[in-house]
Amino acid sequence: MELRNNAIFLNSYFGMNNANMLLKGENSMSENSFSLMSKRMKSSIIRELLRDTGIVSLISFGGGAPDPETFDREALAEISKDVILNEYKFALQYGPTEGDPILKNEYIKLLKERNGIEGLRQENLLITTGSQQALDLMGRIMLDTDSYVMVGHPVYLGAISAFRSYGPRFITVEIENDGLKMDQIEREIKRLDQKGELSKLKFIYVVPNFDNPSGVTLSLEKRKALVDLSTKYNVMILEDDPYGELRYEGERIPPLYKIAEGHNVLLLNTLSKVMSPGLRIGLIVGDSKIVAKAALGKQGVDLCTPGLTQRIAARYLQKGTIFERIKESVKIYRSKKNKMLNAIEKYIKVDGAKWTRPDGGLFIWLELPETFDTMEMFEKAKKAGVAYIPGTAFYVDDRKSSAMRLSFCLPSEEEIEEGIKRIGHILESNG
Amino acid sequence: MELRNNAIFLNSYFGMNNANMLLKGENSMSENSFSLMSKRMKSSIIRELLRDTGIVSLISFGGGAPDPETFDREALAEISKDVILNEYKFALQYGPTEGDPILKNEYIKLLKERNGIEGLRQENLLITTGSQQALDLMGRIMLDTDSYVMVGHPVYLGAISAFRSYGPRFITVEIENDGLKMDQIEREIKRLDQKGELSKLKFIYVVPNFDNPSGVTLSLEKRKALVDLSTKYNVMILEDDPYGELRYEGERIPPLYKIAEGHNVLLLNTLSKVMSPGLRIGLIVGDSKIVAKAALGKQGVDLCTPGLTQRIAARYLQKGTIFERIKESVKIYRSKKNKMLNAIEKYIKVDGAKWTRPDGGLFIWLELPETFDTMEMFEKAKKAGVAYIPGTAFYVDDRKSSAMRLSFCLPSEEEIEEGIKRIGHILESNG
Repeated sequence: MELRNNAIFLNSYFGMNNANMLLKGENSMSENSFSLMSKRMKSSIIRELLRDTGIVSLISFGGGAPDPETFDREALAEISKDVILNEYKFALQYGPTEGDPILKNEYIKLLKERNGIEGLRQENLLITTGSQQALDLMGRIMLDTDSYVMVGHPVYLGAISAFRSYGPRFITVEIENDGLKMDQIEREIKRLDQKGELSKLKFIYVVPNFDNPSGVTLSLEKRKALVDLSTKYNVMILEDDPYGELRYEGERIPPLYKIAEGHNVLLLNTLSKVMSPGLRIGLIVGDSKIVAKAALGKQGVDLCTPGLTQRIAARYLQKGTIFERIKESVKIYRSKKNKMLNAIEKYIKVDGAKWTRPDGGLFIWLELPETFDTMEMFEKAKKAGVAYIPGTAFYVDDRKSSAMRLSFCLPSEEEIEEGIKRIGHILESNG
Repeated sequence: MELRNNAIFLNSYFGMNNANMLLKGENSMSENSFSLMSKRMKSSIIRELLRDTGIVSLISFGGGAPDPETFDREALAEISKDVILNEYKFALQYGPTEGDPILKNEYIKLLKERNGIEGLRQENLLITTGSQQALDLMGRIMLDTDSYVMVGHPVYLGAISAFRSYGPRFITVEIENDGLKMDQIEREIKRLDQKGELSKLKFIYVVPNFDNPSGVTLSLEKRKALVDLSTKYNVMILEDDPYGELRYEGERIPPLYKIAEGHNVLLLNTLSKVMSPGLRIGLIVGDSKIVAKAALGKQGVDLCTPGLTQRIAARYLQKGTIFERIKESVKIYRSKKNKMLNAIEKYIKVDGAKWTRPDGGLFIWLELPETFDTMEMFEKAKKAGVAYIPGTAFYVDDRKSSAMRLSFCLPSEEEIEEGIKRIGHILESNG
């Protein structure tokens, strides 16, 4: 769900944000003139790090952008043309805030077929402008400055950035090989309960499949335990599942939403990783009252997601070829993942280094001994022609980190080998 | 910028929001669990009024949706196909939060050519997901609960809804035949200044061309006066210009942004009324520091506007045929406007009724004597097969209103005649 991790964006950004001179027509607005909310906003570290490099040979393990060769461009091009010619009254017009009913219908079928979720109705679904908008809307309708949100440690930075503008307090939970630490979650819940503040815990945010950044998958046992906790203490779970279809090994595990039969769970989904991020199609599934509230928020925020991209997505899903296509992507990504794991094995010769071996998704989380500071190392890496995301980006308190997130989806296998080799060299010279 | 004013949407909505029963998987979340911000959100009266009618023969003067026959669907279909096939690495991928650089470049040329605005650079522009997002971002980065916003009385309801979630106080200014009442603006500014609160007035919101809902155009003299006030008291102007290109009579008047040479003015624009609302392309033009702050807000809100719709818009603008096309739309809309004015003349036989004769845009504002309540009349009108927007929707205090907003863009000329005739009948039976 992040952006800008390839040369195309680097080029389009090059030189765009260096203008510090006061142009004709600029004004003298001071920082104080901006809102409290704007003061809570922070630029994504990813954006800042990858901005303005202009290094042509840079191999980036930075973003979470899919390999564009996985996009079914021939089919999408035909569908797009047809949709504009024949469905222009919908596709080119204002649309319902809740989303294209045809797309929602396709999503209902898909969630049933792929995740065994039954009984969904149109009013349980809200189409959003990418998952990022779903995260923002959840913040908007749920969070006040005295709210709590429970998140992993580390946690997806897009979620932090969406929630943070609403000023809640974060409670962080350690991540183990099978996902969030359950006893810690219960301990934190009890602590809030004793303070009489449990109702201020608005949700527990979790990416159950191939977590971003950790790559870890929440086990079935833990999913059941988390649902039990949610029921026992009446706490909402915000389940974010952008990568679920990108499984390279092992068996699918049912979503929390399915296990809980929808009770106290909101499920976020997106077509960004399996169809195209450029369509900006995200989805909130849940209780119709909460979905209606989110739709009310969306009405003030952007009225509706583009009719064109929604209807293209709907007609593409109707073709029924998406899972054939995803199988191809899975092959490509599995091979890239293995390439990266092998390269790490081969080139990362640091005692005490450890890394995750994800069953799917886009990311490997590499932890180095504490003497390393991956943020500090970043400039050196960039000069050596390789980029990653320093671990600090994924901590709500911006703590120093000796970890890095490595995305294997966009570079070629050759680049993966070469990029990890470069990282290996830097680590040696740092050792 | 509103949505859903035709049978297509009415049908797609029909029956979608009546489910009050508790579904399996619903939860018992109470209103108290939602955020303060969500409590400020109100559903658009337009949505509620036009929802669930299911009346097939309904003639709607409700929304601000353009006539879909004005969309250049053949050209857009071809461009869309080409863009997906040949520019998929941009169009189907994540894109820069600030917007497609090629689209921004086309917009820079267009603003120069059409409005005489020179010297704009990429960093002065932010592409938004429709104008509604531009309004929301302005609220997000500018407004706190102790802020003031100055607006017309009446004022565009999408702007109220965007600003209101941030909880500011509204100062309302009367609208005359040549736009906002300038001496009242200065009086209100002085009043704030005396209270030591002028710095809390974050902006004056104005739709200078063919205002929504009033249809009124801010005269050149008043534009100059407003810019002078803005400079004298250092108050920002938020200039929203969705309809500027849809002028049917009279001479173009330069935008406030041009008159002020950009100083203290933020200009909003959109392709919704002249190309297609389904692409969701809006624009903020202004001081690079403010634009950067808005981009930071956008990053957390939806990461980026769809690459696909942006690039389609960019390539369409490059074709250079848009103004030929707009000329055609202007002919259609001018004729519809005249049709509506003639019909009003013919059928609205109420002493003391008055209406605006807009030089452009989409709306006529019809004011009846105070004994009428257009909200109360609405159900009767709907039963008679005609819909309008009751004036109350456009007042920040939801006051009772004897006015209605009539949009002439979507119905056919026959429907316009028939619809106004129906309104005339209702008024007679009410008289």
